[in-house]
Amino acid sequence: MGSRARLAYLGPVGTFTEAALRTLPAAEQGELYPMPTVAAALDAVRIGEVDNAVVPFENSIEGSVATTLDELAAGDRLQVVGEIVLPVSFSLLVRPGTTLADVTTVATHPHAEAQCRRWLGVTLPDAAVTLVSSTAEAARLVGEGRHDAAVSAPVAAAHYGLTSLVDGVHDNEGAVTRFVVVSRPGPMPAPTGTDRTTLVAYIAEDHPGALLEILTEFAVRGVNLTRIESRPTGSGLGRYCFSVDLEGHVVESRVGEALSALKRVCADVRFLGSYPRADGLAPTTKPGVADGDFTAAASWLARIRSGS
Amino acid sequence: MGSRARLAYLGPVGTFTEAALRTLPAAEQGELYPMPTVAAALDAVRIGEVDNAVVPFENSIEGSVATTLDELAAGDRLQVVGEIVLPVSFSLLVRPGTTLADVTTVATHPHAEAQCRRWLGVTLPDAAVTLVSSTAEAARLVGEGRHDAAVSAPVAAAHYGLTSLVDGVHDNEGAVTRFVVVSRPGPMPAPTGTDRTTLVAYIAEDHPGALLEILTEFAVRGVNLTRIESRPTGSGLGRYCFSVDLEGHVVESRVGEALSALKRVCADVRFLGSYPRADGLAPTTKPGVADGDFTAAASWLARIRSGS
Amino acid sequence: MGSRARLAYLGPVGTFTEAALRTLPAAEQGELYPMPTVAAALDAVRIGEVDNAVVPFENSIEGSVATTLDELAAGDRLQVVGEIVLPVSFSLLVRPGTTLADVTTVATHPHAEAQCRRWLGVTLPDAAVTLVSSTAEAARLVGEGRHDAAVSAPVAAAHYGLTSLVDGVHDNEGAVTRFVVVSRPGPMPAPTGTDRTTLVAYIAEDHPGALLEILTEFAVRGVNLTRIESRPTGSGLGRYCFSVDLEGHVVESRVGEALSALKRVCADVRFLGSYPRADGLAPTTKPGVADGDFTAAASWLARIRSGS
Amino acid sequence: MGSRARLAYLGPVGTFTEAALRTLPAAEQGELYPMPTVAAALDAVRIGEVDNAVVPFENSIEGSVATTLDELAAGDRLQVVGEIVLPVSFSLLVRPGTTLADVTTVATHPHAEAQCRRWLGVTLPDAAVTLVSSTAEAARLVGEGRHDAAVSAPVAAAHYGLTSLVDGVHDNEGAVTRFVVVSRPGPMPAPTGTDRTTLVAYIAEDHPGALLEILTEFAVRGVNLTRIESRPTGSGLGRYCFSVDLEGHVVESRVGEALSALKRVCADVRFLGSYPRADGLAPTTKPGVADGDFTAAASWLARIRSGS
Repeated sequence: MGSRARLAYLGPVGTFTEAALRTLPAAEQGELYPMPTVAAALDAVRIGEVDNAVVPFENSIEGSVATTLDELAAGDRLQVVGEIVLPVSFSLLVRPGTTLADVTTVATHPHAEAQCRRWLGVTLPDAAVTLVSSTAEAARLVGEGRHDAAVSAPVAAAHYGLTSLVDGVHDNEGAVTRFVVVSRPGPMPAPTGTDRTTLVAYIAEDHPGALLEILTEFAVRGVNLTRIESRPTGSGLGRYCFSVDLEGHVVESRVGEALSALKRVCADVRFLGSYPRADGLAPTTKPGVADGDFTAAASWLARIRSGS
Repeated sequence: MGSRARLAYLGPVGTFTEAALRTLPAAEQGELYPMPTVAAALDAVRIGEVDNAVVPFENSIEGSVATTLDELAAGDRLQVVGEIVLPVSFSLLVRPGTTLADVTTVATHPHAEAQCRRWLGVTLPDAAVTLVSSTAEAARLVGEGRHDAAVSAPVAAAHYGLTSLVDGVHDNEGAVTRFVVVSRPGPMPAPTGTDRTTLVAYIAEDHPGALLEILTEFAVRGVNLTRIESRPTGSGLGRYCFSVDLEGHVVESRVGEALSALKRVCADVRFLGSYPRADGLAPTTKPGVADGDFTAAASWLARIRSGS
Repeated sequence: MGSRARLAYLGPVGTFTEAALRTLPAAEQGELYPMPTVAAALDAVRIGEVDNAVVPFENSIEGSVATTLDELAAGDRLQVVGEIVLPVSFSLLVRPGTTLADVTTVATHPHAEAQCRRWLGVTLPDAAVTLVSSTAEAARLVGEGRHDAAVSAPVAAAHYGLTSLVDGVHDNEGAVTRFVVVSRPGPMPAPTGTDRTTLVAYIAEDHPGALLEILTEFAVRGVNLTRIESRPTGSGLGRYCFSVDLEGHVVESRVGEALSALKRVCADVRFLGSYPRADGLAPTTKPGVADGDFTAAASWLARIRSGS
Repeated sequence: MGSRARLAYLGPVGTFTEAALRTLPAAEQGELYPMPTVAAALDAVRIGEVDNAVVPFENSIEGSVATTLDELAAGDRLQVVGEIVLPVSFSLLVRPGTTLADVTTVATHPHAEAQCRRWLGVTLPDAAVTLVSSTAEAARLVGEGRHDAAVSAPVAAAHYGLTSLVDGVHDNEGAVTRFVVVSRPGPMPAPTGTDRTTLVAYIAEDHPGALLEILTEFAVRGVNLTRIESRPTGSGLGRYCFSVDLEGHVVESRVGEALSALKRVCADVRFLGSYPRADGLAPTTKPGVADGDFTAAASWLARIRSGS
């Protein structure tokens, strides 16, 4: 019987995404499936091969993961049911016995390279840096002797018989990556008081001020955004949709009314889920937008409409 | 038995308000009660002495009738169920035989004086103008020989044995006065597609930007205002409430949501009624705020909230 | 030589406006001219018959004085150079020997009636109230024996041989009237840090949202309004101009840029002056709109425009 | 002597960026320097090794090039002096004699993979796709026999002895990439009437509504944005700066005033240049924001400030 969760994630094994996945209780007894791409991980959810997928969503240094935004915006609708925030910590992995002086080639993933660029420039100014498809792949190539060192998640060392020559080679302390847990549409996590809602809005026509209008719909209802990204719709420069995270849960009145408003004034809105925030922060709103305020106003409206 | 409508109006007889009242079908067989003040006319409705009252609301030259705004804002809530717009036309009424050269004193109401000031200045530059409580009272005083001429509604001539020496003595062609028909709260006129809604909003605290916030609540929902007046609340200079007319009927979704929003963010909102516009103009709205848009968005919201 | 100031005011003698005028140092040695109307007082300034005029502008109970707003908006431009705020205090003036039981007729000005209505209704429920052109005129008529009592400024008692039967007959404690001091255009009062600016804005075309646009021009520059009144332009119901008071002095950058913006987007703007506030309150602004911020931004702009 | 322009670009040779660079007249006689990274190309400008650099900025499918945004935002200020927009067209390059049936491995750059993903999935569903650092590098590897085929710019074929097996393998017709031409700060291109301005704005504190405020500063002055991207500042999730393109030239009044306003209300603004738009589109503005409107308003302001 199906009691073990089937969980896909952006592989290969030995990356930060696997580490994120392993923070989930369901992962302990679950079947874990590393997938080659974000698209493959999400499609595995869509066709029912797995129950959930964990994919990277944004990074405090590199910004949003465009592929994830785009794959969630296209295809059958999926639902974000959770988020995981992990500190980013890169190590320089080498074959046992290698010293810094030996390192003339370094392999890593472009995002890792971006976050360790200054360290590499200072410490290994003459090393050739090769960009590969993942930090785990970089570690594998070092294990095979194809490169001298890999900038990688430390957990990859064990997988490929490497050792860490230097830990913490990232340029920015405090960098974090946010991952999302994705399922097929279905009952969503109950509101906790510290929730986040994610959606994609396609503006009705590309007129000046469209973004201002969208932001105003949120602002008048006291709904704060925590992230807004423009993404090209693929139909030409200057044609965008907006990927948005906001404070609150869709069952809350102010969020529901704001989403309905967006649905009315946009060409389309794709709701991607409401789920607990990893940071546990409560929304900052404004007076008059609590659920009780909406209920009282609705009663008043019914009363005046009935003429009493 | 109560089959004859009892109708109060701002008297005395022979004023424009009586003329406005007489445009109502109910006035033909109704009992008409001229009242000395707007307050008295409205109180007669409140205590059930009459069914309706007709009082002046605003004038295209003089602006709103502050007394009417204030009396509707205070006391038990009343309901505007209709409006009447009449062209303003003043005549110079005299006792038979009087010529322009004989006129050394003119009586009129301050609002009439304001609207005939240029004509009086040019035609009767040396005449002393006395302001009295109504144009009909001015005509009465001329009938008694206390003044030489009255600037008045032409209909007052017959009541007081006067004749019109000059018609159309007002400075602005096309001036109109708008009157409202008031009842106790009850079933309101059905929406016609060309309706107006009147309300009073008391801002929650007198902070800079409060009016901007209120206007934004209307604007995001495509609700246009046709009149907005600040009125002092009586609690100090700089403390205002806002008397508002807007396009549309409270049963329409965009109007209902906007009023609910005001109710949430204001200290208080007094709804004063939705009723057909005298000018028959349809609202200009914006895309996405028709009732069908609200219904579709509500269905969508219910669907995503249910996780389907 | 012309060392004595010639000062007009809305008469007659014995009104609150005279009391306001007498608070001005220039009034001590000045020649004082009571005028029959606000228009006459302002025209006396326009044609140079007097140096200044003092006229009532708004009242914390009754609202703005429409005549003053309209007379300042029309005709040759004048300039407000100061304001005076006086507490409103009405007395019931009678001929010596009259008792409350003797009072069957009361004369007063409509604005005074509005502010003492409850007191009159409770204390003299059966008295006939006659509205006349000023509270001083009411006192004069009582002196002549034409009415039993006048609701009036207490100072009128001495002029007409009356005595105060009851002081403080106004309904609202703390009511005040604000008067403005008007001159021909010329050098304006230097900024004091607690100034007010008055203007009239005519919207370019009467489109929905015009008022919202105007308010936004002020809000983005941190300029707060202390009063905004819509006034009919005389060209039809629903056609308005806006009479505005705002915090700050036109020489301040944020006020100057906001006024320039209004000038650009409105059909017309009439500047009516910057002058010290009677209440001495400093503006509440927002970060980034102090004069130093504007100067620094202008330097930066010049620098980037020059390519350095 | 230095009459030949020294031009860096994001290499290697045989990429779309080289093709973009070659559209510049200066490239005909210029010295062309392919650089390994965007950072290296921009730094070559900063230290004076080259006069200009051409780097990719955004793509109508993939969105902005994060590295370019971030490298322009950091380090010494540079200036965008032009833009180039090229249609995107990918080919499948192979060694002569290779057929589709022979292709089991494909090399390409991640962005090219993203834009040809559907074609690859349909045409070569079983091929292993390896992501490398550029499409030209992919072609080079195919030339060396390390992979069977490269998805690449067609121009790379000649450099590496390859032939095109299939042209137009990209999923979206009409895709374009926009490149920018960068110099050190200095005199900027004169306004043409169809210009674009690029800047980065750092919000003063990360409060809800900060983006709305920035957009309002542009909107009130009739300045339309053609692109807005949030980019992490590196100091934590939810901390962003905004990369903005807008219609118009900084010498125009409405743009200058808007930029000054941003400078006042933001923690910092980095101006990155005004330059002709490749598409030749003129700005859509609103009434009242032409240079003549600003000049007239400034004259009016000077006049009223002087009291005349």
